Amino acid sequence: MSTPAAFEAAIDRLNVKSERDMEVGVYLLHRLEELGVKSFFGVPGDFNLGFLDLVDDYPGIDWVGNCNELNAAYAADGYARIKTGSVGAVLTTYGVGELSAINGIAGAYAEIVPVVHVAGFPSLKEQKDKPLLHHTLGDGRYNIYAQAAELFVCSHIILNNHEMAAAEIDRVLSDCVLQSRPVYIALPTDIAYLKISSDRLGVPLPRLLVPNDTRSESAAIEEILKLAEEAQGDVAVLVDVGAVRYNAVQEVNSFLEKTGYTVYASPMGKSVVNEQYERYGGLYTGATTRPEIKDKIENAKLLISIGALKSDLNTGNFTNTLDVARTVELHHGITRVKFSEYPGVDMKYLLPKLTSAIASSFVKSQALTIQVPKWTSPLPQESDGIISQAWLWPRVGQFLRPKDVVIAETGTSAFGVLDIPFPEDAVFVSQILWGSIGWAVGSTLGAAMAARQKGLGRMILFIGDGSIQLTVQELSTMLVEGLKPIVFILNNGGYTIERAIRGENRKYNDVVNWRWLSLMKALGDVDGTKTKSYVTNTKAELDALLNGSAFSAADIMQVVEIRMRMFDAPYALKAGTPVGRNW
Amino acid sequence: MSTPAAFEAAIDRLNVKSERDMEVGVYLLHRLEELGVKSFFGVPGDFNLGFLDLVDDYPGIDWVGNCNELNAAYAADGYARIKTGSVGAVLTTYGVGELSAINGIAGAYAEIVPVVHVAGFPSLKEQKDKPLLHHTLGDGRYNIYAQAAELFVCSHIILNNHEMAAAEIDRVLSDCVLQSRPVYIALPTDIAYLKISSDRLGVPLPRLLVPNDTRSESAAIEEILKLAEEAQGDVAVLVDVGAVRYNAVQEVNSFLEKTGYTVYASPMGKSVVNEQYERYGGLYTGATTRPEIKDKIENAKLLISIGALKSDLNTGNFTNTLDVARTVELHHGITRVKFSEYPGVDMKYLLPKLTSAIASSFVKSQALTIQVPKWTSPLPQESDGIISQAWLWPRVGQFLRPKDVVIAETGTSAFGVLDIPFPEDAVFVSQILWGSIGWAVGSTLGAAMAARQKGLGRMILFIGDGSIQLTVQELSTMLVEGLKPIVFILNNGGYTIERAIRGENRKYNDVVNWRWLSLMKALGDVDGTKTKSYVTNTKAELDALLNGSAFSAADIMQVVEIRMRMFDAPYALKAGTPVGRNW
Repeated sequence: MSTPAAFEAAIDRLNVKSERDMEVGVYLLHRLEELGVKSFFGVPGDFNLGFLDLVDDYPGIDWVGNCNELNAAYAADGYARIKTGSVGAVLTTYGVGELSAINGIAGAYAEIVPVVHVAGFPSLKEQKDKPLLHHTLGDGRYNIYAQAAELFVCSHIILNNHEMAAAEIDRVLSDCVLQSRPVYIALPTDIAYLKISSDRLGVPLPRLLVPNDTRSESAAIEEILKLAEEAQGDVAVLVDVGAVRYNAVQEVNSFLEKTGYTVYASPMGKSVVNEQYERYGGLYTGATTRPEIKDKIENAKLLISIGALKSDLNTGNFTNTLDVARTVELHHGITRVKFSEYPGVDMKYLLPKLTSAIASSFVKSQALTIQVPKWTSPLPQESDGIISQAWLWPRVGQFLRPKDVVIAETGTSAFGVLDIPFPEDAVFVSQILWGSIGWAVGSTLGAAMAARQKGLGRMILFIGDGSIQLTVQELSTMLVEGLKPIVFILNNGGYTIERAIRGENRKYNDVVNWRWLSLMKALGDVDGTKTKSYVTNTKAELDALLNGSAFSAADIMQVVEIRMRMFDAPYALKAGTPVGRNW
Repeated sequence: MSTPAAFEAAIDRLNVKSERDMEVGVYLLHRLEELGVKSFFGVPGDFNLGFLDLVDDYPGIDWVGNCNELNAAYAADGYARIKTGSVGAVLTTYGVGELSAINGIAGAYAEIVPVVHVAGFPSLKEQKDKPLLHHTLGDGRYNIYAQAAELFVCSHIILNNHEMAAAEIDRVLSDCVLQSRPVYIALPTDIAYLKISSDRLGVPLPRLLVPNDTRSESAAIEEILKLAEEAQGDVAVLVDVGAVRYNAVQEVNSFLEKTGYTVYASPMGKSVVNEQYERYGGLYTGATTRPEIKDKIENAKLLISIGALKSDLNTGNFTNTLDVARTVELHHGITRVKFSEYPGVDMKYLLPKLTSAIASSFVKSQALTIQVPKWTSPLPQESDGIISQAWLWPRVGQFLRPKDVVIAETGTSAFGVLDIPFPEDAVFVSQILWGSIGWAVGSTLGAAMAARQKGLGRMILFIGDGSIQLTVQELSTMLVEGLKPIVFILNNGGYTIERAIRGENRKYNDVVNWRWLSLMKALGDVDGTKTKSYVTNTKAELDALLNGSAFSAADIMQVVEIRMRMFDAPYALKAGTPVGRNW
């Protein structure tokens, strides 16, 4: 793996031999494959059909046709979240397609997920003559969708100059990987087929950041060391989403192991550190944190925060009252030590050096004197058979296995899953900052494809009866792709999370009651042999289902309707209104 | 009804008596109701729940909760198309919701449909402090979605100044009606509840354009009169979508009736003029026009084109070879006589004066000497029972009744419906410029609500098995709203229109085969009593179904799967590749 500087140096040394031996579209596919893309999501349209032929003929990447473009963008997002270090890819057509996907792309931007959005674009001649084509606004503003796209990506290009196409593709894809944010590539129908030299493919894309300035980095480490010494082992590490998005998980784990420091996670950082690790104490959610660990964190002599994203729902609505004077923040691109900032000092390079500098058997023995309360989630004893939120999540916790991938939709599901410790190497995926309901269905498709490619375990989705209606059709794509997710639909009669915020009994929080048992039949399991569907009304029914070995083997796609009470909500949601709206 | 100038004069004369007697949100609802809005589409979210309470409590407007925001925008679009002179309204939440709707709004812009998009927005305090809220990008760019929205509307406002809110609402809504394009109103959560004076409601919003400059208008009419005299009655009028969108249908009909001129329509203008009118000759689609009328139009001594929108699919892919030297073009905001332009001369005011100036019994008797070939669509005799495109559309033509509202999805449906003459007052709705597949489902919801409010006839949707998958969940909303559309699903195994363009046998044009018979059960007809579903494999089966009086009475929601051949396509689509892509 190389850095951007090494990449440019190697490109400069390129001795261009071949000429125009590869279509621009195929060049793009080679680079995507190099980045780890094996599945390309999207919807065909007449501005991308030509490129689609190239995708269809390309051996290393499979086309996954989605039901609609928003779902496709969500799928690419889910794919990228699971394939850490790789990217997701989504193809749409000009105007109608790409605009449908834009919420999914903006969500990837917010949540620091590297997604490559390729959009079909008119040919050079069409761009010049500006005929009144379908999918245009009728006013000649051919670049208007690209203008919208630019707002929600970290890098973008309209590939109008094929002589520059390879270099521009490389630039934009590098930005995608290194910044871990979505990018936009508009591909004119004619340019996709123009031949260019493939020589640049001889130099792999840069995957590593520019190293930190050594003097700045050393100064930061020196300051952190002082604080660590003063803390005498009473150090709490708080891991958040940046650690996984900026590909520093290995560095974090090594730091934890060698120091023995206690570690906690934010909601968005859940499962980044193995939740069965003996020094792991659970989730920190500000004021709603379980009291036995809240004190441990807030009163630790030193808090080392890694990759923090301090959004409302990731901090117990800004109740994370951590003392800056006792806090070190390690980030992508910046380090903060108490009140000082070290711009440009990135955690990925700093962490190994910090580990070397701190770690010793003395430090570890000091650290191990700090107890971590064991995080458990016992099943409550309730007198009735109704499936309550308080009972459901601990029961789900018993059901989970190592390497399971769990996606929780924004709503009661995302709050509920926070209450349960995960088995080893189980992966939690949620969209806690962006919070676009419906995202979890598309994301599950992409995550399941990636999980299969990575050899992970079962794919498990938790979603409400309101949220699933936004994007339900993508269950059909899971079916045809041979995926075997377990889809738990929490049927509580509408938007319970909204009821918790406002309008408890208002009509606008109702949704139509669907017949979930018939859903997969309608969506493509025509003869009823490719999926199984269940409905559970009581604890006993759900318990029996989860205990069944055939069910838990998950060797077929399964949909489970869990009937629940309308006004029931998980602890974290009950503990406080998650947002402080001024009405 | 008043013009903008009269409105402003009346506002200036307002003697403000009351003070702060109405919430900003309620003021907005009053103005929407005044414009004819009875149904407000959308999806709740925590940035619009407060305003939703006001909607829920407002007697004149009903909330229609959609399954997702894109469908909601499509519904508002369909509603506005049917309620000519009114507007459609859609409510979304900040970021995630509004971006999901943006393709629907852009489509309304392209197709000249007045839709009011109200988006929930952070409070003034949040805008000032910029906390890291959910639904933000995490980088403090609070106005970024409004920036995206601006690209696709004719007028917009973030209602941050409540003292100006009433005036700004009036300005933006006036633009919506007068320009017949979408507008965007960002409504901060706190502003929605601030009290303002309701005095401005005493002055109705302007609904009429500024009158034409009389000298310019007279000059244009004089030139047109000369051409009309020279033509000696051999005048063909070509009606297009602008006539209906800019509310000039009555003026057009009066002109036609009093002159006796022959009249034809473009695809987007289909049904604007009653297709049973004895002087109506059918559709003009350039090179693919039926030969017997193509000559009549192209060789008429004078062509009067009204409200033309010359997009590719509205002109037989730009094969509308009409001689400018024999053409008058009447538009919204401009008139063209041969090679001269009269900027600012609008058809709505010009047409009545032109009618007065031209019409005489002599002119009419001259005009009536020009024969109009009777447009019929006979049922072809085919030897097999397979439901062909060639047979289907004429058969559908026999099924239609006066006042039916017919929506045809982009694809084979939109092309196919063009082949059949409509009964009196039947309405055709399609999205021929924007062409966003999936639009027709949401649009049918909105159109059906509007049709019921207007007392129109049956709501009939034609859509393919590929397109319906994009937005299928909105059938559920039709069910719960008690609508009774007939939904014809043309099941031809995927994206047949794309196959006609490229990739005939490519995997990317396949879609999953759903079990359409089970669909409505899954989507909310839990006990199977609220809808009826059918599958037809042969001409005889479909024929029998269409002949059934219970079926054609359409007093329950009905879904009909029509199984067809994969590579079959309607005449207009077969007659030439609709778009000339350069691959």
